[in-house]
Amino acid sequence: MENDELVQNMLLELRRGVLSIAVLSQLGKEEYGYSLLKALSDLGMEIDQSTLYPLLRRLESQGLLQSNWRIVDEARPRRYYVISPQGRAVLSKLKKEWSAMAATMHKMLS
Amino acid sequence: MENDELVQNMLLELRRGVLSIAVLSQLGKEEYGYSLLKALSDLGMEIDQSTLYPLLRRLESQGLLQSNWRIVDEARPRRYYVISPQGRAVLSKLKKEWSAMAATMHKMLS
Repeated sequence: MENDELVQNMLLELRRGVLSIAVLSQLGKEEYGYSLLKALSDLGMEIDQSTLYPLLRRLESQGLLQSNWRIVDEARPRRYYVISPQGRAVLSKLKKEWSAMAATMHKMLS
Repeated sequence: MENDELVQNMLLELRRGVLSIAVLSQLGKEEYGYSLLKALSDLGMEIDQSTLYPLLRRLESQGLLQSNWRIVDEARPRRYYVISPQGRAVLSKLKKEWSAMAATMHKMLS
Protein backbone atom coordinates (compact mmCIF):
# COMPACT_ATOMS: atom_id res chain seq x y z
CA MET A 1 0.00 0.00 0.00
CA GLU A 2 1.25 3.51 -0.70
CA ASN A 3 2.26 5.55 2.33
CA ASP A 4 -0.43 8.15 1.76
CA GLU A 5 -3.13 5.50 1.57
CA LEU A 6 -1.80 3.90 4.75
CA VAL A 7 -1.79 7.24 6.55
CA GLN A 8 -5.32 7.97 5.34
CA ASN A 9 -6.57 4.62 6.61
CA MET A 10 -4.91 5.10 9.98
CA LEU A 11 -6.37 8.58 10.26
CA LEU A 12 -9.84 7.28 9.42
CA GLU A 13 -9.52 4.83 12.28
CA LEU A 14 -8.38 7.59 14.60
CA ARG A 15 -11.15 9.95 13.54
CA ARG A 16 -13.84 7.32 14.02
CA GLY A 17 -13.35 7.39 17.76
CA VAL A 18 -12.85 11.11 18.00
CA LEU A 19 -15.95 12.03 16.02
CA SER A 20 -18.40 10.55 18.52
CA ILE A 21 -16.95 12.74 21.25
CA ALA A 22 -16.85 15.77 18.97
CA VAL A 23 -20.49 15.36 17.96
CA LEU A 24 -21.73 14.81 21.52
CA SER A 25 -19.76 17.83 22.71
CA GLN A 26 -21.42 20.13 20.16
CA LEU A 27 -25.00 19.06 20.85
CA GLY A 28 -25.49 20.80 24.18
CA LYS A 29 -27.91 22.88 22.15
CA GLU A 30 -30.09 21.61 19.32
CA GLU A 31 -28.61 21.44 15.85
CA TYR A 32 -29.74 19.90 12.60
CA GLY A 33 -27.34 18.00 10.38
CA TYR A 34 -26.04 20.87 8.33
CA SER A 35 -25.72 23.35 11.19
CA LEU A 36 -23.78 20.75 13.18
CA LEU A 37 -21.53 20.04 10.20
CA LYS A 38 -20.86 23.77 9.96
CA ALA A 39 -20.15 24.10 13.70
CA LEU A 40 -17.68 21.20 13.59
CA SER A 41 -16.03 22.57 10.47
CA ASP A 42 -15.65 26.02 12.07
CA LEU A 43 -13.79 24.33 14.92
CA GLY A 44 -11.49 22.56 12.46
CA MET A 45 -13.19 19.15 12.35
CA GLU A 46 -14.18 18.40 8.76
CA ILE A 47 -16.75 15.64 8.38
CA ASP A 48 -18.78 14.41 5.42
CA GLN A 49 -22.55 14.22 5.50
CA SER A 50 -22.20 10.57 4.56
CA THR A 51 -20.26 10.03 7.81
CA LEU A 52 -22.21 12.40 10.04
CA TYR A 53 -25.76 11.22 9.40
CA PRO A 54 -25.17 7.52 10.16
CA LEU A 55 -23.21 8.59 13.25
CA LEU A 56 -26.11 10.73 14.47
CA ARG A 57 -28.51 7.83 13.98
CA ARG A 58 -26.18 5.47 15.81
CA LEU A 59 -25.75 7.83 18.75
CA GLU A 60 -29.52 8.28 18.92
CA SER A 61 -30.15 4.53 18.82
CA GLN A 62 -27.69 4.22 21.72
CA GLY A 63 -29.79 6.70 23.68
CA LEU A 64 -27.09 9.38 23.70
CA LEU A 65 -29.01 11.84 21.52
CA GLN A 66 -32.64 12.82 21.20
CA SER A 67 -34.14 14.16 18.01
CA ASN A 68 -37.32 15.61 16.66
CA TRP A 69 -38.61 17.05 13.44
CA ARG A 70 -39.20 20.77 13.40
CA ILE A 71 -40.24 23.41 10.90
CA VAL A 72 -38.42 26.70 11.28
CA ASP A 73 -38.96 29.81 9.13
CA GLU A 74 -40.72 28.18 6.20
CA ALA A 75 -37.76 25.86 5.55
CA ARG A 76 -38.50 22.23 4.93
CA PRO A 77 -38.85 20.11 8.09
CA ARG A 78 -35.50 19.30 9.67
CA ARG A 79 -34.54 16.75 12.23
CA TYR A 80 -32.95 18.50 15.20
CA TYR A 81 -30.61 16.62 17.53
CA VAL A 82 -29.65 17.37 21.12
CA ILE A 83 -27.66 15.43 23.70
CA SER A 84 -29.74 13.32 26.14
CA PRO A 85 -29.13 13.07 29.89
CA GLN A 86 -27.53 9.67 29.27
CA GLY A 87 -25.40 11.28 26.55
CA ARG A 88 -24.20 13.91 29.03
CA ALA A 89 -23.15 11.22 31.47
CA VAL A 90 -21.30 9.31 28.75
CA LEU A 91 -19.69 12.46 27.35
CA SER A 92 -18.42 13.40 30.77
CA LYS A 93 -16.65 10.04 31.12
CA LEU A 94 -15.31 10.16 27.56
CA LYS A 95 -13.92 13.66 28.17
CA LYS A 96 -11.97 12.45 31.20
CA GLU A 97 -10.58 9.50 29.28
CA TRP A 98 -9.78 11.65 26.28
CA SER A 99 -7.83 14.11 28.43
CA ALA A 100 -5.80 11.30 29.95
CA MET A 101 -5.14 9.79 26.53
CA ALA A 102 -4.18 13.14 25.00
CA ALA A 103 -1.78 13.81 27.87
CA THR A 104 -0.15 10.40 27.39
CA MET A 105 0.17 10.96 23.65
CA HIS A 106 1.67 14.37 24.28
CA LYS A 107 4.36 12.77 26.44
CA MET A 108 5.02 10.09 23.83
CA LEU A 109 5.24 12.35 20.84
CA SER A 110 7.31 15.14 22.31
CA MET B 1 -26.69 -1.12 26.63
CA GLU B 2 -25.46 0.07 30.03
CA ASN B 3 -23.61 3.39 30.06
CA ASP B 4 -20.38 1.80 31.22
CA GLU B 5 -20.43 -0.72 28.43
CA LEU B 6 -21.15 2.03 25.90
CA VAL B 7 -18.28 4.12 27.23
CA GLN B 8 -15.97 1.12 27.13
CA ASN B 9 -16.88 0.39 23.50
CA MET B 10 -16.36 4.00 22.49
CA LEU B 11 -13.01 4.08 24.27
CA LEU B 12 -11.95 0.88 22.51
CA GLU B 13 -12.70 2.54 19.20
CA LEU B 14 -10.74 5.61 20.23
CA ARG B 15 -7.78 3.61 21.47
CA ARG B 16 -7.57 1.54 18.30
CA GLY B 17 -6.43 4.55 16.31
CA VAL B 18 -4.22 5.93 19.04
CA LEU B 19 -2.36 2.70 19.67
CA SER B 20 -0.78 2.51 16.23
CA ILE B 21 0.75 5.94 16.72
CA ALA B 22 1.82 5.13 20.26
CA VAL B 23 3.53 1.89 19.20
CA LEU B 24 5.32 3.49 16.24
CA SER B 25 6.48 6.36 18.44
CA GLN B 26 8.10 4.00 20.96
CA LEU B 27 9.98 1.88 18.43
CA GLY B 28 12.71 4.34 17.54
CA LYS B 29 14.90 1.80 19.31
CA GLU B 30 14.39 -1.96 19.23
CA GLU B 31 12.00 -3.50 21.72
CA TYR B 32 10.51 -6.94 22.12
CA GLY B 33 6.84 -7.41 22.97
CA TYR B 34 7.10 -7.31 26.73
CA SER B 35 9.61 -4.46 26.93
CA LEU B 36 7.40 -2.38 24.64
CA LEU B 37 4.34 -3.20 26.73
CA LYS B 38 6.25 -2.03 29.79
CA ALA B 39 7.43 1.18 28.08
CA LEU B 40 3.87 2.03 27.01
CA SER B 41 2.51 1.24 30.44
CA ASP B 42 5.14 3.45 32.11
CA LEU B 43 3.90 6.29 29.94
CA GLY B 44 0.30 5.63 30.99
CA MET B 45 -0.88 3.63 27.97
CA GLU B 46 -2.09 0.23 29.17
CA ILE B 47 -2.36 -2.40 26.46
CA ASP B 48 -2.98 -6.16 26.56
CA GLN B 49 -0.60 -8.62 24.94
CA SER B 50 -3.60 -9.92 23.01
CA THR B 51 -3.98 -6.47 21.47
CA LEU B 52 -0.30 -5.59 21.10
CA TYR B 53 0.97 -8.68 19.30
CA PRO B 54 -1.54 -8.63 16.44
CA LEU B 55 -0.95 -4.88 16.11
CA LEU B 56 2.83 -5.42 15.82
CA ARG B 57 2.29 -8.04 13.15
CA ARG B 58 -0.09 -5.77 11.28
CA LEU B 59 2.30 -2.81 11.38
CA GLU B 60 5.11 -5.07 10.18
CA SER B 61 3.01 -6.46 7.32
CA GLN B 62 2.30 -2.85 6.33
CA GLY B 63 6.05 -2.25 6.15
CA LEU B 64 6.07 0.20 9.06
CA LEU B 65 8.10 -2.03 11.37
CA GLN B 66 11.00 -4.41 10.90
CA SER B 67 11.65 -7.36 13.17
CA ASN B 68 14.16 -10.08 13.80
CA TRP B 69 14.74 -12.89 16.24
CA ARG B 70 17.55 -12.40 18.70
CA ILE B 71 19.00 -14.23 21.67
CA VAL B 72 20.13 -11.96 24.49
CA ASP B 73 21.67 -13.11 27.79
CA GLU B 74 20.65 -16.74 27.65
CA ALA B 75 16.98 -15.81 27.51
CA ARG B 76 14.82 -17.63 25.00
CA PRO B 77 14.84 -16.09 21.50
CA ARG B 78 12.75 -12.97 21.26
CA ARG B 79 11.40 -11.11 18.28
CA TYR B 80 12.65 -7.52 18.37
CA TYR B 81 10.78 -4.78 16.55
CA VAL B 82 12.01 -1.41 15.33
CA ILE B 83 10.42 1.28 13.16
CA SER B 84 11.31 1.14 9.44
CA PRO B 85 12.18 4.15 7.26
CA GLN B 86 8.66 3.95 5.83
CA GLY B 87 7.30 3.80 9.36
CA ARG B 88 9.18 6.99 10.23
CA ALA B 89 7.65 8.78 7.26
CA VAL B 90 4.17 7.59 8.21
CA LEU B 91 4.65 8.43 11.89
CA SER B 92 5.74 11.92 11.02
CA LYS B 93 2.51 12.52 9.08
CA LEU B 94 0.38 10.89 11.77
CA LYS B 95 1.99 13.08 14.44
CA LYS B 96 1.08 16.25 12.55
CA GLU B 97 -2.49 15.09 12.08
CA TRP B 98 -2.72 14.01 15.68
CA SER B 99 -1.57 17.41 16.90
CA ALA B 100 -4.17 19.16 14.77
CA MET B 101 -6.88 16.78 15.97
CA ALA B 102 -5.87 17.13 19.62
CA ALA B 103 -5.90 20.93 19.31
CA THR B 104 -9.39 20.82 17.78
CA MET B 105 -10.65 18.51 20.51
CA HIS B 106 -9.15 20.77 23.16
CA LYS B 107 -11.14 23.71 21.77
CA MET B 108 -14.31 21.63 21.62
CA LEU B 109 -14.10 20.18 25.08
CA SER B 110 -13.05 23.25 27.02
